[in-house]
Amino acid sequence: MLKEWSGFEKLEEDVLQTRLEAARNRLFVQQMELKTHKLPVLVLMEGWGTAGKGSTIGKVIRNIDPRFFKVATMDIPTEEEKRKPFLYRYFAKIPEAGKFMFLDSGWMDEITTDRLRGGMELSEYAKKIDSVKRFERQLTDNGYLVVKFFFHISEKEQKKRMKALEEDSNTSWRVSRKEHWQNKHYEKCLEVYDRYLDSTNLPSSPWYIVDAKSKKLAELQVLEQLVSSIDIALQNAALAVPLLQNVFPLVRMPKLADIDLNQTISAEEYKTKLKVLQARLRDLHNELYRRKIPVVIAYEGWDAAGKGGNIKRITGAMDPRGFEVHPIASPEPHEKARHYLWRFWTRLPKTGHVAIFDRTWYGRVMVERLEGFCSENDWKRAYNEINEFEKELADWGAVIIKFWVQIDKDTQLARFTDRQNTPEKQWKITDEDWRNREKWDQYEVAIDEMIQKTSTVYAPWYVLESNDKRYARIKALEIVIASVEKALQQKKN
Amino acid sequence: MLKEWSGFEKLEEDVLQTRLEAARNRLFVQQMELKTHKLPVLVLMEGWGTAGKGSTIGKVIRNIDPRFFKVATMDIPTEEEKRKPFLYRYFAKIPEAGKFMFLDSGWMDEITTDRLRGGMELSEYAKKIDSVKRFERQLTDNGYLVVKFFFHISEKEQKKRMKALEEDSNTSWRVSRKEHWQNKHYEKCLEVYDRYLDSTNLPSSPWYIVDAKSKKLAELQVLEQLVSSIDIALQNAALAVPLLQNVFPLVRMPKLADIDLNQTISAEEYKTKLKVLQARLRDLHNELYRRKIPVVIAYEGWDAAGKGGNIKRITGAMDPRGFEVHPIASPEPHEKARHYLWRFWTRLPKTGHVAIFDRTWYGRVMVERLEGFCSENDWKRAYNEINEFEKELADWGAVIIKFWVQIDKDTQLARFTDRQNTPEKQWKITDEDWRNREKWDQYEVAIDEMIQKTSTVYAPWYVLESNDKRYARIKALEIVIASVEKALQQKKN
Repeated sequence: MLKEWSGFEKLEEDVLQTRLEAARNRLFVQQMELKTHKLPVLVLMEGWGTAGKGSTIGKVIRNIDPRFFKVATMDIPTEEEKRKPFLYRYFAKIPEAGKFMFLDSGWMDEITTDRLRGGMELSEYAKKIDSVKRFERQLTDNGYLVVKFFFHISEKEQKKRMKALEEDSNTSWRVSRKEHWQNKHYEKCLEVYDRYLDSTNLPSSPWYIVDAKSKKLAELQVLEQLVSSIDIALQNAALAVPLLQNVFPLVRMPKLADIDLNQTISAEEYKTKLKVLQARLRDLHNELYRRKIPVVIAYEGWDAAGKGGNIKRITGAMDPRGFEVHPIASPEPHEKARHYLWRFWTRLPKTGHVAIFDRTWYGRVMVERLEGFCSENDWKRAYNEINEFEKELADWGAVIIKFWVQIDKDTQLARFTDRQNTPEKQWKITDEDWRNREKWDQYEVAIDEMIQKTSTVYAPWYVLESNDKRYARIKALEIVIASVEKALQQKKN
Repeated sequence: MLKEWSGFEKLEEDVLQTRLEAARNRLFVQQMELKTHKLPVLVLMEGWGTAGKGSTIGKVIRNIDPRFFKVATMDIPTEEEKRKPFLYRYFAKIPEAGKFMFLDSGWMDEITTDRLRGGMELSEYAKKIDSVKRFERQLTDNGYLVVKFFFHISEKEQKKRMKALEEDSNTSWRVSRKEHWQNKHYEKCLEVYDRYLDSTNLPSSPWYIVDAKSKKLAELQVLEQLVSSIDIALQNAALAVPLLQNVFPLVRMPKLADIDLNQTISAEEYKTKLKVLQARLRDLHNELYRRKIPVVIAYEGWDAAGKGGNIKRITGAMDPRGFEVHPIASPEPHEKARHYLWRFWTRLPKTGHVAIFDRTWYGRVMVERLEGFCSENDWKRAYNEINEFEKELADWGAVIIKFWVQIDKDTQLARFTDRQNTPEKQWKITDEDWRNREKWDQYEVAIDEMIQKTSTVYAPWYVLESNDKRYARIKALEIVIASVEKALQQKKN
């Protein structure tokens, strides 16, 4: 789309001024409308070096109250960021409902630079494009406005600007080797940028090419486009979007009702096995650390099913410097104000680390579904969104293990009663637990659907039969060990 | 998406029956909701030969009143259809608001078959994919629900079915050379289908792969997906969509206010030139016909600007068997019930013919805009939709000429008064003309914007200065002649 593009209209100075004023005033009014409608706005500024992305952001934000926007410059990833999935640092930066986030360069710059500098194979590049399209679609499907600008200048104009910047000792630092490389390989870059824009020009988050030759005109184009996009987004409160068919390979799973919960293990056998398995996991954890393989373990299960004790047997085998346990309660206000996966994206482990989630992102299709905390369209869409999320983790190289800790209704009642009657366990039982128990059958339908729809080959569910908690702990350890061994093996080949 | 796809879940007979009943009942109820919400539903059934597309349609429609749906089998294009743009026969088939259209194979089948059988270059194929994406996006942007199914069976299953059909003399006609070719080149077809599905899997009109091994299961999948898609679409009344930036090369155009309307021609010169030019156009019209080049001439202009007389001077030079004039008034109910471009798509000329439109699709951004007959989002989106429409015509090989017939406000008043005072001209002037005249300034803003935004290189606007009608007629003839000569020249090279 870059090559055929014919540039912005020519405007007389007074017309330009009038239109600038109008757009600025509209933006000023819109910031309050955003708040009322809880609309989050992500503005992505991409384009040629020296095209004026940063200075345009500077001008645009003058019309917005500082409480309502943030600006982030996305430079080369830090060492920390390099040890997270590719999209991590972008997902972490998405705005809160009712606020703006301006990104000075983003995922386009990162991907195309890697591609141009020979750091990325074509197949890897295609995969990244898919990731980006899913990422942007997830945002717009979840009510985000995503406005994407590409700042365009000619080779000659870029050269002129670089020279001017370099001649002034106050600004010479702004021209780096990157700009020089870009200008020297302008045609090659143009080709790659053009194809990138084409393949990521989604109807719900289209590209706008900014004719950046004149700074004032560039400001006008960004302001007018931004203001118009916000006006359109404000009209669409809570829209429903088509549900996408699953495209990921699934593992067939049994229904909860068909699971045999009579499996047990003797105290003797438990003790012996526990020791052996924990010793093995200890070794594997070390190897994971050295080989920089990240592990994500997700725990879901009925109240009183024994998640806590199960997790302890896993963590008991590992070096505390190499794992984290994330207990997940209902979201905080700043979390609720963002995409529901945001609080999980920001809690991902570094490569070589293990993250254990005590309750997870699956709350979307269980409690949020049943309690009406999100719309039907929201939770129905979530199966695919979650599969996509876990696909990102798998592509990053993570081992993903998901446990459903299963007990029957009688066992739950016995444990609830025991908790109620034992003073030192009373803190573990709340009215909410009893209320949830009343909805057992509805939960069972939701859990069955969840397990069927999200048990992918790369992130399968495992059911832990936990009427006998010791049996469940041994099984969990065995599954973690087998999964990690498999991953280590595959990485070797 | 086809290759990694893991098929539909296995269901027990009683579960299958219950779910089938539920979906059928829901669809039965939805047909009335569609009418209330004026939602048009286009169901596209693509997939392997013998996979059961037709018979599934047969089962689905049993739940719908015959007044509310149509079924069309899209076979090889007829000779007539081959002389229209590629998308013509599909656009012609789009449903009315509140009704269903089921297409048994469609544009996917046409494009992929051409590609597979070697009838289409890769660059042409890529262009067609773009056309399809624009077509589908225009439909969904304009409130259509587009549900796309791909019926999938294995090579073995297809072979088995073909054999069974051929062994019965009542059904053997259903297996053609096409199915044999497909089965013989199954892997190659799979590859092409897979890539087609990937590249046209739009979030607003996603693909659903149907596991078609069992007919009953196939029916269930189609019913459940259809019902769920309709439920989602019903929630989104009148949604606004992002406005896309123009991606087509534009011609810079003057504003109406800057046009010199004092140009005239003497009666003498007019007579001489008219004769010469009409003779030349007569010859060119013959050559167009022989060389099968279609021509589309669009007339817009102020009331009493002289469109009618101008058109007469063009048609006067042509063989009546080779042209049609389409006077465009406000749309009929069956036209209003469809995409606003439908009535123009269905009026396109055949190759080698000339179609002249007296008023056009530009009504969307003039009268519909000013009178509020469509939403702001609708008319703002229309500039791009129209550029896309004309791009289809240009890619098809059409010469497109758009005339804006311009007069000043005083001239209009003089002509209105003359009409009012001349008994045989009184039919030409209505109250509406006077009402429109009161909105002259608003119209001028709209027309300026229209001419700026839709004057593409492949379909430019020409302003005819028509204070002197004779001057305008000569200019129109000259422009038509020059445009046709250019096209004939280019086709030669």
